[in-house]
Amino acid sequence: MNRISYKYILLLFPFLMISITLSAQEDYKLWLQYAKVSDSKLVSDYNSNINGIVALGNSETIRVASKELQLGLSSLLDNTTVIQQNIEAENVLILGSKTSLNEAISKSLNKEFEQINNEGYIIKTIQIKNKNHILITAKTDIGVLYGVFNFLKLIQTNKSVENLNIVDAPKIDIRILNHWDNLNGTVERGYSGSSLWNWQKLPDFIDQRYIDYARANASIGINGTVLNNVNANALILTPLYLNKVEALANTFRPYGIKVYLTARFSAPIEIGGLKTADPYDAAVQQWWKDKVAEIYTRIPDFGGFLVKANSEGQPGPQNYGRNHVDGANMLADALAPFGGIVMWRAFVYSEHDVNDRAKQAYSEFVPYDGKFRDNVIVQVKNGAIDFQPREPFHPMFGAMPKTPLMMEFQITQEYLGFSTHLVYLPKLYQEVLDSDTYTKGKGSTVAKVIDGSLDNHKLTGIAGVANIGSDINWTGHPFAQANWYGFGRLAWNPNLDSEVIAEEWLRMTFSNDLNFVNPIKEMMLKSREAVVNYMTPLGLHHIMDTGHHYGPGPWVSNLSRPEWNPVYYHKADKNGIGFDRSKTGSNATSQYTPDVAKIFDDVKTCPEEYLLWFHHLPWDYKLKNGQTIWDGIALKYQKGVDEVATMNTTWDKMNPYVDEQRFREVQMLLKIQLKEAKWWRDACLLYFQQFSGKELPKGVENPTQTLEYFETLKFPFAPGNN
Amino acid sequence: MNRISYKYILLLFPFLMISITLSAQEDYKLWLQYAKVSDSKLVSDYNSNINGIVALGNSETIRVASKELQLGLSSLLDNTTVIQQNIEAENVLILGSKTSLNEAISKSLNKEFEQINNEGYIIKTIQIKNKNHILITAKTDIGVLYGVFNFLKLIQTNKSVENLNIVDAPKIDIRILNHWDNLNGTVERGYSGSSLWNWQKLPDFIDQRYIDYARANASIGINGTVLNNVNANALILTPLYLNKVEALANTFRPYGIKVYLTARFSAPIEIGGLKTADPYDAAVQQWWKDKVAEIYTRIPDFGGFLVKANSEGQPGPQNYGRNHVDGANMLADALAPFGGIVMWRAFVYSEHDVNDRAKQAYSEFVPYDGKFRDNVIVQVKNGAIDFQPREPFHPMFGAMPKTPLMMEFQITQEYLGFSTHLVYLPKLYQEVLDSDTYTKGKGSTVAKVIDGSLDNHKLTGIAGVANIGSDINWTGHPFAQANWYGFGRLAWNPNLDSEVIAEEWLRMTFSNDLNFVNPIKEMMLKSREAVVNYMTPLGLHHIMDTGHHYGPGPWVSNLSRPEWNPVYYHKADKNGIGFDRSKTGSNATSQYTPDVAKIFDDVKTCPEEYLLWFHHLPWDYKLKNGQTIWDGIALKYQKGVDEVATMNTTWDKMNPYVDEQRFREVQMLLKIQLKEAKWWRDACLLYFQQFSGKELPKGVENPTQTLEYFETLKFPFAPGNN
Repeated sequence: MNRISYKYILLLFPFLMISITLSAQEDYKLWLQYAKVSDSKLVSDYNSNINGIVALGNSETIRVASKELQLGLSSLLDNTTVIQQNIEAENVLILGSKTSLNEAISKSLNKEFEQINNEGYIIKTIQIKNKNHILITAKTDIGVLYGVFNFLKLIQTNKSVENLNIVDAPKIDIRILNHWDNLNGTVERGYSGSSLWNWQKLPDFIDQRYIDYARANASIGINGTVLNNVNANALILTPLYLNKVEALANTFRPYGIKVYLTARFSAPIEIGGLKTADPYDAAVQQWWKDKVAEIYTRIPDFGGFLVKANSEGQPGPQNYGRNHVDGANMLADALAPFGGIVMWRAFVYSEHDVNDRAKQAYSEFVPYDGKFRDNVIVQVKNGAIDFQPREPFHPMFGAMPKTPLMMEFQITQEYLGFSTHLVYLPKLYQEVLDSDTYTKGKGSTVAKVIDGSLDNHKLTGIAGVANIGSDINWTGHPFAQANWYGFGRLAWNPNLDSEVIAEEWLRMTFSNDLNFVNPIKEMMLKSREAVVNYMTPLGLHHIMDTGHHYGPGPWVSNLSRPEWNPVYYHKADKNGIGFDRSKTGSNATSQYTPDVAKIFDDVKTCPEEYLLWFHHLPWDYKLKNGQTIWDGIALKYQKGVDEVATMNTTWDKMNPYVDEQRFREVQMLLKIQLKEAKWWRDACLLYFQQFSGKELPKGVENPTQTLEYFETLKFPFAPGNN
Repeated sequence: MNRISYKYILLLFPFLMISITLSAQEDYKLWLQYAKVSDSKLVSDYNSNINGIVALGNSETIRVASKELQLGLSSLLDNTTVIQQNIEAENVLILGSKTSLNEAISKSLNKEFEQINNEGYIIKTIQIKNKNHILITAKTDIGVLYGVFNFLKLIQTNKSVENLNIVDAPKIDIRILNHWDNLNGTVERGYSGSSLWNWQKLPDFIDQRYIDYARANASIGINGTVLNNVNANALILTPLYLNKVEALANTFRPYGIKVYLTARFSAPIEIGGLKTADPYDAAVQQWWKDKVAEIYTRIPDFGGFLVKANSEGQPGPQNYGRNHVDGANMLADALAPFGGIVMWRAFVYSEHDVNDRAKQAYSEFVPYDGKFRDNVIVQVKNGAIDFQPREPFHPMFGAMPKTPLMMEFQITQEYLGFSTHLVYLPKLYQEVLDSDTYTKGKGSTVAKVIDGSLDNHKLTGIAGVANIGSDINWTGHPFAQANWYGFGRLAWNPNLDSEVIAEEWLRMTFSNDLNFVNPIKEMMLKSREAVVNYMTPLGLHHIMDTGHHYGPGPWVSNLSRPEWNPVYYHKADKNGIGFDRSKTGSNATSQYTPDVAKIFDDVKTCPEEYLLWFHHLPWDYKLKNGQTIWDGIALKYQKGVDEVATMNTTWDKMNPYVDEQRFREVQMLLKIQLKEAKWWRDACLLYFQQFSGKELPKGVENPTQTLEYFETLKFPFAPGNN
């Protein structure tokens, strides 16, 4: 056969039969891909264990649980798993809460039921009349839904479903996302499009995304969402908006997700027509009581308020000479009759306070320990500054034993490369949760403060500032989905290992092929240290550019508030670099328990990853490996860049395992990350070099631009800076 | 078999095996669903006619054309249509431009090639060695791509592919979308999320949406896009942004789509460091020449500039005592060496001009006829006010025979219910295009002005203000996709029938089932008259609420510029209603040719749909059907509401033919539309009733709220009002 047999074919373009991307299907589906199991032996095992589904109960939650099972199983096993009317057959998958089970079955599970709380679940292979069945049960329907998602995960991650006996329950009560979404649709520190909430079309248009948002959250056990920005707008509390909030609450309810709102402290003035918002004013108190009652009329399971008060310009009780306790307790009193709570943020610092900003939240809040109402929980950021690539744990953890504290992590990458940098945050979360406060001796970890076990608190919580937006892939970067996922998993159980979480996420989201899972898991696990190295090594912090926080800006020194300037934090000069927070400096170390303080205080024992956080050191100070500080910093920056280069080469080999679209997306993003890692390295080293006066050590690449070039870069419409 | 055989099953929720929505796949895919052809006879016919594909040529455009064919055919016919290396077999689908064909074939198509221009295409069944093949060819590769999309459409709409002989070519050169997208990601008058352009991630991240945007546009022949808002920001012309624009241009190029930008007239000052933007200033002229050269270095096929000057606060030549010709020609001179054009908008009106706003654009521009450079085209909105539900055609059409005029339609529904109202706009477009200007006697339609045939213009164009945003379904409302589609089809051929367009869109987007196509096509065709009736019947116009333009606001009278107030337009008082633009009034009618002016001028001959546009009439003036104006207005409002109610009942029956997600979305949106249609009716009638002093006629439902209620409605964050 002659290859080109007709003259008129002048040019022939040979094609490979490449897979053609039809749409953004995979990007959208998060870790609920439910991709067909590729191992046919496994498929056959699963099919023989799952002959059908029997759903007990008729709640909306049981309905969505059953629907999810059908969706998941039919897609994973590529067949139609039929809802049964009975369990005549063997190997039926039965789901239902305890009350829907017959007494014998229920009794036989007494031990398991004792191990779980209201949100826990049991997945167990049981025998009825000598026939095997799989039972997914719980004390509540929501527990059953959690069980269903975890059963599906077994198949998604190619685990066996034989002889199952899984008993699991969340360790923390309030597992909540904080959306910093504005009513105009923008998202403060949002890098994945605009707000999910289409206030214009609510309440009558329920976007499918609201349902899929709820599914995704329920699948990892998130049970609360604060819909709007902590820099709050009082209009959210008007009937116009409450009507819309109600529609979202109705949509989320079957998935076990409660709605919370931020309460602008001055709302009684702005929308209530009062002259004051003084928490001691009876009319103000009554206004909040009435407003809360109005909300609960619409939303009987409304969660409560999140409040940022007297911080960064937000109004608060201090405007009236009152304090945080006065403000929080007033709102708590209004919410208490309905079971609502107040999450009062401890993220405060004052331009009038000359003390080290890192000390201010502790100084202001710790004296109030024990003075808050029972339904108040104080929300504390993981570190004392603000979501930096690395911070030591916040000294408030462990320091207020009589007050429940909840963790605030940031999932959105305000300071960690927006949505173009691949940074696996559960490593960061785990580092904080595992930190030992020593407040009740060794082993008093932050996790134990948060889960209430250290000080026997009934109210426990953990919040993540969401990275979710209107982008089709939800989070801007396909791998940023892992941070949402990982936050949820650690909120469920703060003792989980971030490596285990990475592996299950990769298997559910991309592939079970170990040729993919192993190298990419390693890439994820190393990514957090990489960003620390190429942005803020050795304890440096808050040296990003101003306002938008995009890229490096260690030179910025002209902002009105001293503690907004990077120079406040790195204090680089001819003599050295770093913020002396030891006894000889701001003495922030004294806010930790003596065991911890001692370690941080002494430059010899201070972990090097926090070195310049706690100490100001000369440029030729010797690190443990013998390098000078200058050389050490420079080599760390280079190491960060090198790591990102490795991430690029690793990913480039993953084409066979990933759909074309996501492969290319991640590839493009990793290239941006490499470019920006170099930008960080070059800009910071050129800047600090002015003070160190030293050459770059061997192994560090020369910058390709001048410091002046980097200083003139402007990003007028960088996202998230609303 | 006993139905519920085990005691422990206390509650059993019976399930139907409903189709479960996995994702927003269908919503995203627009009219390129490529759903499997359901008629098996047809599938077999198609398969027997298409044995394989041979693609001639190796351009990027041929590559994407071939890829699209594979994607489309494999999905439509549910098999893998293989790229062939030769045409040994029968029934090969051959695609390639004229130059890639052998001489014999090329010659045999001489007649067809003569009928088409550079963008036209030929789809023809040919014989080679007594074997049948289908040839898709054109003078250019872009023409081939258009042919491919139209061949796929044949199958999408279940047409035969036997004995094909299709010759088609666009009637208008520049078929362009105007995106009113701001650099901060918001979209002026956008109701479908934020801007598609992710300036933050460009140039290094090419979102799949950019490619799918290009595919969708190419499939309907759109060949240009203005990326940014006519209320322009000069920063788009800086290297930072041109670098990003270049990346988009590279992405769109294979699809035949040229990139254009808006040029802020004061850019020489704002980003050029000059003291003036005076078009007579040599430095200013040079600055633009240099800037244009810089753009063409990056983007060799850059299309040119769209300019809004001296209108609604935008800077322009009049700031320096120059006129529109001076401004346009200066930019034209800079662009001419590179083949670029200037689209200069005629949408101007002045707060200092006491004349009827409807007259001002004509008055200002018509005297300049013949004075613009050859590469300037004046862009005129379809009507003299501003994209109202109905306006008579703009009097400038036909009035500037020596100047090419391009049409500006609005696809985004600024005044027509945002993205919650189903309004099929091609009916509106067709009405305008079919309007007879009589400037060269009967038959001098607006379409002929636009396609250049009336006055023999070489440069022709038509622009649509895009309704495209970041929403997964692109346009906010699934049926708003039809307006994008329909605009493209009419831009290709302004003589197409809007009914034909509706039918092909429905078949491609939803279903070929006539039980669906026929009633829904009727619903679409009636929807435009419905919105006219429930918003602005009988020639009323511009009575929407202020700023955001959401909902009715006939009472608004407090805006600083008189012509911004609805009361300026309806002039309702005790004596009557309507704007007298006849000889006895503003004499706007005189701007039309005498044949047309005469018809509009005389209240007896003036079409009733324009009655109150041209005449102020007493409340008891008798319409042709014998009703008084008051009764007529009221009954029209009711009729609009009734039509929307019918749309609801029609759609409710369509569940069997549409995927669950889109079915529910449209259902929810139609309910909103009905609610808002009633709002318009009630608010406007209550307001006008104050002046008419008459009862509502029989058949008109009583309003459920008071006028005061409607007047107090506030929509603080209505979208699109940036």
